[in-house]
Amino acid sequence: MNLKSVKKIAIIGVGFMGGSLALAMKRKFANISIWGYARSQKSYNKLKKLKILDKATLNLEKCVLNADIVILALPVEAVIACLEEIAPLLRKNSIVFDLGSTKKLIEKAALSYLPKEVSFVGCHPLCGSEKSGAEFARWDTYKNSICLIASSAKEKAAKIIEQFWKKLGSKVIFMSSGSHDELLSSISHFPHLISFSLIQLTPDNYLKFCSGSFKDLTRISSSPASIWADIFFSNKKNLINDIDGFVKVLSKFKEFLEKGNKRDVFNLIKKANTKHMSIK
Amino acid sequence: MNLKSVKKIAIIGVGFMGGSLALAMKRKFANISIWGYARSQKSYNKLKKLKILDKATLNLEKCVLNADIVILALPVEAVIACLEEIAPLLRKNSIVFDLGSTKKLIEKAALSYLPKEVSFVGCHPLCGSEKSGAEFARWDTYKNSICLIASSAKEKAAKIIEQFWKKLGSKVIFMSSGSHDELLSSISHFPHLISFSLIQLTPDNYLKFCSGSFKDLTRISSSPASIWADIFFSNKKNLINDIDGFVKVLSKFKEFLEKGNKRDVFNLIKKANTKHMSIK
Repeated sequence: MNLKSVKKIAIIGVGFMGGSLALAMKRKFANISIWGYARSQKSYNKLKKLKILDKATLNLEKCVLNADIVILALPVEAVIACLEEIAPLLRKNSIVFDLGSTKKLIEKAALSYLPKEVSFVGCHPLCGSEKSGAEFARWDTYKNSICLIASSAKEKAAKIIEQFWKKLGSKVIFMSSGSHDELLSSISHFPHLISFSLIQLTPDNYLKFCSGSFKDLTRISSSPASIWADIFFSNKKNLINDIDGFVKVLSKFKEFLEKGNKRDVFNLIKKANTKHMSIK
Repeated sequence: MNLKSVKKIAIIGVGFMGGSLALAMKRKFANISIWGYARSQKSYNKLKKLKILDKATLNLEKCVLNADIVILALPVEAVIACLEEIAPLLRKNSIVFDLGSTKKLIEKAALSYLPKEVSFVGCHPLCGSEKSGAEFARWDTYKNSICLIASSAKEKAAKIIEQFWKKLGSKVIFMSSGSHDELLSSISHFPHLISFSLIQLTPDNYLKFCSGSFKDLTRISSSPASIWADIFFSNKKNLINDIDGFVKVLSKFKEFLEKGNKRDVFNLIKKANTKHMSIK
């Protein structure tokens, strides 16, 4: 299989991310038929009205039938459940990929559930929106963003999916699922945990005073509990590691403050200043 | 004294905050002569060029001489040093106020250094800019912002300074210096410490991947070490208290993750979601 021979792509989970993929594919792959699975009559009606798919269906089997590529645009646990469910429905030589926030557990599930004739490629586009739902989908969501692929760059299916993302304007970076999950804990999952914790600690009557800095740190504390509890558990080892590391840095600050080591506190902040300059 | 009888105001520290005050006063108090102290020939030349003062001078004594109000727009430690320096130069019945980020140490210094015939009013306008320097000063910096006054609302001098801030468009809130410092640790100083610590913990090679959430949490980690080491030490008791409180919340998350208590993690995040809704 190559990208040019693809005739049907099925999306399971047509929310903001899945919907944006549908719109982007419509622009970039004119001859591919894009199907989407609707879990309920209500979401079926919405998808029909939005017209972002060639075909919306309430029938999972029909949706996946003969699809060359199946995309799981679902939260981590739902990806895992879905892999088990669709395994017997998949066409030989088809490729399944997901967009989940952690990759190790999903990779393990794919290995155990999918038949050998089906390839799996774990993907994680580093983009998104605070809004959820297909009604907010945008064709350019993936343009100029980074997509991490949890695979060796040498795998044939991974190469095809790399071409797919490149066509959508994404920059692709390959890494192992383990490295991916460590990275994501650091740059996304643990920052969320910090944000949830900070607002938790702050007395209610202080919230009306909050300055720009406090607003910056707590903006993401509005991220939905249902999704984030899942993500935390799917990456719990790395997250606990980051909690431990962070407590160590805090203890250092505390020790220097208690001992009156102003030069040391200055140096810690100075290092942070310097590191901040390398963020793009 | 009342605001209408004020003829001369002296600003010590004409950077972004002091310069913005000069511009705002020029608009709102047409008949007051606004003097500013320049510490070096270089900053004297800059202030002359910017024309935001009626009179710039390199002579601290001349600057303060016969001023009805003296404004210290300096970092905390510099405010304390300056109080001692200007104490013998101040006119009877004049009012001194500062803009420092913590209020308890400054209040203590004012009590010990200033003569009884001079009133001190600790102020803290909750606004600012990432840019520093008088060249970025804006007349509307204080408009629609909150100014905390660390004093009883009944003090005569505090009432005059309240009028001053109101005239500039600020909303004034009175509280004790102790309450002020606790509040500020929570909503500003500790969030800065978190931001410095997070970027510290993050491996250098991860910084190129950083997502929106990571950028949010580390934006303020570029805040200058020289100012923030000072602020941390001037509010160290509250800061250590907040470090301890935060470590407790992190430990709770860790415990729930280790024990697999998904419902508890969900509830912690849900609480954060709810609290976030009350931020304006």
